[in-house]
Amino acid sequence: MDLDDLRRVVDGRWAHVRGIVRREVPAEWCRPAVDTDPALLRAETLKRARALAATGLPRRGFAKAYGGEDDIGGSLTAFEMLGLVDLNLMVKAGVQWGLFGAALQALGTSSHHERYLPSMMTLDLPGCFAMTETGHGSDVQSLRTTATYDPAREEFVVSTTDDEARKDYIGNAAVDGRVAVVFAQLVTGGESQGVHALVVPIRDEAGRPCPGVRIEDCGLKGGLNGVDNGRLWFDGVRVPREALLDRYGQVAADGTYSSPIENRSRRFFTMLGALVRGRVSVGGAAAGAAQVALAIAVEHGESRRQFARPGTDGEVTVLDYLTHQRRLLPALATSYALHFAQGELVSDLHDVQTGGTTDDERQRELESRAAGLKAISTWHATATIQTCREACGGAGYLAVNRLVGLKADSDVFTTFEGDNTVLMQLVARSMLTSYRDHVGDLDTLGTVRFLAEQVKETLLERTSARGLVDRLATAAPGRDEDANLLDREWQRELFAWRESHVVAGLARRLRRVSTSDGAAAFEAVNRVQAHSLRAAHAHVHRLVLEAFVAAIDNCTSDATRALLSRACDLYVLSEVEADRGWFLEHGRLTPAGSKAVGRAVDDLCRELRPHARTLVAGLGVPPAWLGAELAGSAQPSRSST
Amino acid sequence: MDLDDLRRVVDGRWAHVRGIVRREVPAEWCRPAVDTDPALLRAETLKRARALAATGLPRRGFAKAYGGEDDIGGSLTAFEMLGLVDLNLMVKAGVQWGLFGAALQALGTSSHHERYLPSMMTLDLPGCFAMTETGHGSDVQSLRTTATYDPAREEFVVSTTDDEARKDYIGNAAVDGRVAVVFAQLVTGGESQGVHALVVPIRDEAGRPCPGVRIEDCGLKGGLNGVDNGRLWFDGVRVPREALLDRYGQVAADGTYSSPIENRSRRFFTMLGALVRGRVSVGGAAAGAAQVALAIAVEHGESRRQFARPGTDGEVTVLDYLTHQRRLLPALATSYALHFAQGELVSDLHDVQTGGTTDDERQRELESRAAGLKAISTWHATATIQTCREACGGAGYLAVNRLVGLKADSDVFTTFEGDNTVLMQLVARSMLTSYRDHVGDLDTLGTVRFLAEQVKETLLERTSARGLVDRLATAAPGRDEDANLLDREWQRELFAWRESHVVAGLARRLRRVSTSDGAAAFEAVNRVQAHSLRAAHAHVHRLVLEAFVAAIDNCTSDATRALLSRACDLYVLSEVEADRGWFLEHGRLTPAGSKAVGRAVDDLCRELRPHARTLVAGLGVPPAWLGAELAGSAQPSRSST
Repeated sequence: MDLDDLRRVVDGRWAHVRGIVRREVPAEWCRPAVDTDPALLRAETLKRARALAATGLPRRGFAKAYGGEDDIGGSLTAFEMLGLVDLNLMVKAGVQWGLFGAALQALGTSSHHERYLPSMMTLDLPGCFAMTETGHGSDVQSLRTTATYDPAREEFVVSTTDDEARKDYIGNAAVDGRVAVVFAQLVTGGESQGVHALVVPIRDEAGRPCPGVRIEDCGLKGGLNGVDNGRLWFDGVRVPREALLDRYGQVAADGTYSSPIENRSRRFFTMLGALVRGRVSVGGAAAGAAQVALAIAVEHGESRRQFARPGTDGEVTVLDYLTHQRRLLPALATSYALHFAQGELVSDLHDVQTGGTTDDERQRELESRAAGLKAISTWHATATIQTCREACGGAGYLAVNRLVGLKADSDVFTTFEGDNTVLMQLVARSMLTSYRDHVGDLDTLGTVRFLAEQVKETLLERTSARGLVDRLATAAPGRDEDANLLDREWQRELFAWRESHVVAGLARRLRRVSTSDGAAAFEAVNRVQAHSLRAAHAHVHRLVLEAFVAAIDNCTSDATRALLSRACDLYVLSEVEADRGWFLEHGRLTPAGSKAVGRAVDDLCRELRPHARTLVAGLGVPPAWLGAELAGSAQPSRSST
Repeated sequence: MDLDDLRRVVDGRWAHVRGIVRREVPAEWCRPAVDTDPALLRAETLKRARALAATGLPRRGFAKAYGGEDDIGGSLTAFEMLGLVDLNLMVKAGVQWGLFGAALQALGTSSHHERYLPSMMTLDLPGCFAMTETGHGSDVQSLRTTATYDPAREEFVVSTTDDEARKDYIGNAAVDGRVAVVFAQLVTGGESQGVHALVVPIRDEAGRPCPGVRIEDCGLKGGLNGVDNGRLWFDGVRVPREALLDRYGQVAADGTYSSPIENRSRRFFTMLGALVRGRVSVGGAAAGAAQVALAIAVEHGESRRQFARPGTDGEVTVLDYLTHQRRLLPALATSYALHFAQGELVSDLHDVQTGGTTDDERQRELESRAAGLKAISTWHATATIQTCREACGGAGYLAVNRLVGLKADSDVFTTFEGDNTVLMQLVARSMLTSYRDHVGDLDTLGTVRFLAEQVKETLLERTSARGLVDRLATAAPGRDEDANLLDREWQRELFAWRESHVVAGLARRLRRVSTSDGAAAFEAVNRVQAHSLRAAHAHVHRLVLEAFVAAIDNCTSDATRALLSRACDLYVLSEVEADRGWFLEHGRLTPAGSKAVGRAVDDLCRELRPHARTLVAGLGVPPAWLGAELAGSAQPSRSST
C-alpha cells in the first residue's frame, strides 16, 4: 500500500497548510481535559487561542493589505484541522476569526479594515459575533435589536427592545470580548432598512462592561465549556455613524439610506452569504472530530478481544465481528467521502472569493452546498462519535479515552451556525429556485434532462462521464438486477436519479399550492417538509459522491485507487441500504436487488476489514493526536494556569 | 379528556409506590447540577442515597425476615422512577441495592443474609458489585480473578492474576464501598469450578484500603460523575470460607465442591439469571429519562415560535411544523409502548420471584425479555434524548435545561449491565433454543404455526385475539393494500409475522452450519449476526405491542382508550416505517402500501399534535420534576456540602 499517495490525495490542495498545523499544534492540545472547572477551561482555551494566533495561521484568510495572506482555502483547512485537536479551541478561534473577523472583513469597508483587522488577527482585540437572540435564531430576518440613527448627533442608538431580543449564546461575550459585531434592525428617518451589522464596544480596557451594556454568562453547557458564551443587552448604547459595517448599506450623515443592492431580501441574503466561511469551518471541523473518533474506535476494535474463538485457544478480536465492522467501516468510508466533498467546497470557495469576479450563481451554489454539507457532516459526526463511544464500551465512557469529550463538544454543531433542519430546507429551496428558473413547467422528462445537464456541466465534465448523461436522460428507472452494484456509473446514475426524482416530485407538489390563502399555503408547505429534507439529502449525497469519484481519479497508485474505490463502494451502498425503503418504493430497487445491496455491504465490510488501520492512517491523523489512553496516548492534559 | 383514567393505566399495578416516590423525592433532586467538581457531585449523590434509604423505599425489594417488604415489583418501580429524577442517584442506588444487595440476597444463604442485608439496606454498609474486569466485560465466563481455596486455613485466596483481570468501572469502589461481592474463578483441589461470588472487605472503618487491596479511581467520565467508579486489584487477599455466596455452589471445609446444579454452564446462567433485577431497573430508568426529555422538548415545542406564519401577524409555534412533530411524537408514542412493556415485565418478574414455585421456562423467558427490553429501551433513550436536545436548539445545550445532563448520564446505559448488541444476541439465542426445542426440523409453515401458538398462549389469550392465529397459520404474506393500517389485528399480525419470518430464516441459515470446523463455524455465525439482531428486535417489538394492546384494554374511559389507541397506531406505524425496507424486501408491503404507511405517520402526527401536552401529562412526570428552566422550573440545584 502506497500510503504516500493516499495521504497526498487526502491532504489535497492545502497539504502544505496541513503540514504546518501538524507541526505547530502541540500533541497535548489533543488530550482530553481533566479540569472540570469552566473558569480553568476557559483560561486554557484563551491561552491556546493566543498561541494559535502566534503561529500566524489565523491570519491566512485575511487581506494581505492588513497583514493577512489572502489564503482563504488555507485558512479554512487550518480551522477544519482544529476539529481533530480541540473543539473548544476550534470554536473559540471560529468565533474570533471565522465569525467576528470575517464579518469585519466581509461586511465592513476600508476604514473598518484598517481600524480592526490587525488587532483582530492577533487576538489583541477579542470580539463577538452578536447575531442570535433568545427569541430568534434561525429566523435572522426577524431579529428585534434595533440600531436607530440619530442625525442630530450622527450616532446610532442600539437597543435591546425586550428580553426576547437579548443576544444569546454569544461566544467570547461572557469574559473575553471587547467589541461585538451586533446585528440589528437598522432604522433611519423612522424607516426600517432590515438587518445590518455594527461594531459596538462592550467592555473597556479593564474588562468592565461599557455603559448601557449588560452581560450575563450563559453558564454551564453540554460541552465547549472552554468557550465563554454569554448574553448581551443594549440599553440605548450610542455608537458613531462609522460603526455601521457599510459594505452593503450606508447611512449618510443626514440619515439617508443607500445600498448597492436595491432589493431588501437580496441584500439580506448577500450579507449572510458573505459569512459562508463560518459554516464551512463547522462542517469541516465536525468531520474532523468524527475522523478522530473513528481512529480511536478502530484502534480499540483491533486490540480488544472478547469471547473464545471457536476452534482456537484465543479470543476474537472485536473488529472481526461483522456487527462491529458494520458499525465502524461504513462510517469510515463516509468520512472519506465527506472529507473529499469538504476539500472541493473549500477549493471552490477559495477560487470564487479570490477570483475577483463575482458570479452570483456560483456564489449561490456555494452557499447552498456549504449549508447542505454542514448539515450532513455534523449529523454524521454526531452519529459516528456516538457509535464509536458505544463500540468502545465502558472504556469509551471514560474521559481519558476522549470520545465523550468529542461527543459533548461537537453536539451543538448540528444546531448552531444554522440549525441543520432549517439549513436543509434552504438547500431544498435553492434547488427549487434553480429548478424553476430553468425548468418552469416542464414535465418529469424535462426535469430529468435539466438535472442531467446540471450534473454534466458542473461536475462530470472533469471526469469521464461515459454515457451517464444519456442514460439519465432516458428517465427510465433501471432494474437493479441488471446492474453491477459496484459499477461506478450505475452508482452515480442512481444518486442522480434519486435527486432528480425527489426534486421533480417536490416541484410538482408545490406547484399546486395556492399562495392566496395563507393558512392553506402554510399547511401545504408544512406537508412537504419531509420531502424537502429528502431532496436536500439526495442533492448533497450526489455532490459528495462526485467528489469521491474525483479523488479516486486523482490517485497515481493502483493500490490506492483500488482501496479508495472499495471505500467509495461501501459509502455508496451503505447510503443506498439506509435509504432502500425509498428506492424500493420508487421501483428503483427490487426486493431481490435490495437484499443484494445488504449482502454487498457485508462483503465490502469483510473486504475492507484488513485495511481498517490503513484507512485510518490515510486520513492523516498523527498518532500523537489521538489523545486517548486506549489508543496509546496516555496522560490527559492538565491546564497550566 | 379523563386524565385520571390515563394516569391510572400508566401508573399501573404499583401506582401506590409511584405516589410515595412522587411525595418523597424533593423536586430539587430533579434539577441539573451546576457543580462540575466530581468530589462535590459524589458527596451530594451519597447524601441523596442516604436520604433515599431513610424513606424506606430501597428496603421494599428485600426479604421481610431481614427488614424488607418482599415487594420486588414495588422496588423495581421505585428504581425506575429515579430515572426521572437523578441518574447519578439512580445508578448509585442501583449499585448498592440493585446489584450489591441483590447479589447478597440471590446468591447468598441465610448466614450472609443475617450478616449483611440489614446494614446493606440502610446503606450503613456501602458495597460494590465487582464483576466486570478490564479484559472481560460481556464475556463474564472468562473472568480471570481467582478465588483459590486453602483447606489448611479454611480460607479463599482472592487474586488479580494480571492487569486485564483487575476489576474495572466498579461503582462505589473509588470512595464509598466497604465490601465487594467479587466474581472470581473458584478453584479448589486444583480444579476450577467456574465463576462464583464472594464477599471481600475492601476498606476498613476509616476508609483505608484493606491489606492486599489496591484501589484506583476511574476518573472523569462522560456523565454520572456523582458515582465513584473505580478499579480493584486483589493481591492474595484471604477471606474465610463463609465469604463464598454459596446458594449455587458450596465448598466444604476439606475443599470438596458441591452444587445443586450439576451442569456448569447451567449453574453459571442460573447465577446470572438471579441478578436480572439490575437489568430491569436500567431499562426502566432509561425509559424514564426519555420521558423527562420528551416532556421538556414538548414544552419547548409548544412555547417556541419561529418564522412568520403566512397570512397572520404571528409566528409559527414550532410544534406545528410537521418535521418537529415527526421528531417528537413517534418517540412519545414509543415511550408509552415501552412503559407498558416495562410494567408488564416488572409485574411478571414479581409474580415469578415471589410465587414460590420455580418455573425454569418462565424464568428463562423473563431473562430474555429483560435483556431485550433493556436494549430497546436504552437505545430509545439515547436516540430520544439526543433528538430532544436538537429539537430545543441552543437552549437544549445549556445545562439549566437538563437535556445535556440526561444525555451524558444515560449514555452508558446502552453498554453497561450488558452491552446492548451482546444482549440482543442472547435474546436471539434464546429464541432459537425455544424454536429448536419445539420445532426441530419443521419447515416454514411449521415454524409459523409454532410461533402463532406461542403468541396465543403467552400473550393473546387475555385479549380478544380474533382470528389472528388462524390468519398467522396460513403463512401467506398479506397484501397491505387489503389492510387497514389502523386495524390493530393487522398490526399485531404484521409484527408477529415479521418475528416468525426472521427467526425461521435464522434457524434455516444456522442449520447448515457445520460445527466440526471451528473457523468455518465462527464465520457462519458471524455472517448471521445482523440477522440475529433483527430477530431480537422483531421479538421485543412484538411483546411491546402486545403490552400496549393490553394497556388499551385496561382503559375505562372511551376518550382515554381512543387517545392511547392513536398513540399505539403511531408507535406501530413509525416502527413499520423505520423498517419498511425489510417489509418491502419480504413482500409484506408493496411500494404503494409503504408510501401509505409514511402518509399515515404524518396524519397521526397531525392528529395527536393537539394532544401532545395531554400525552406528556399522562406519563405523570410531576411538573416540578422537569427541572428545566425552559419548562418553567428555574434555579438549578446546588449541592449543599
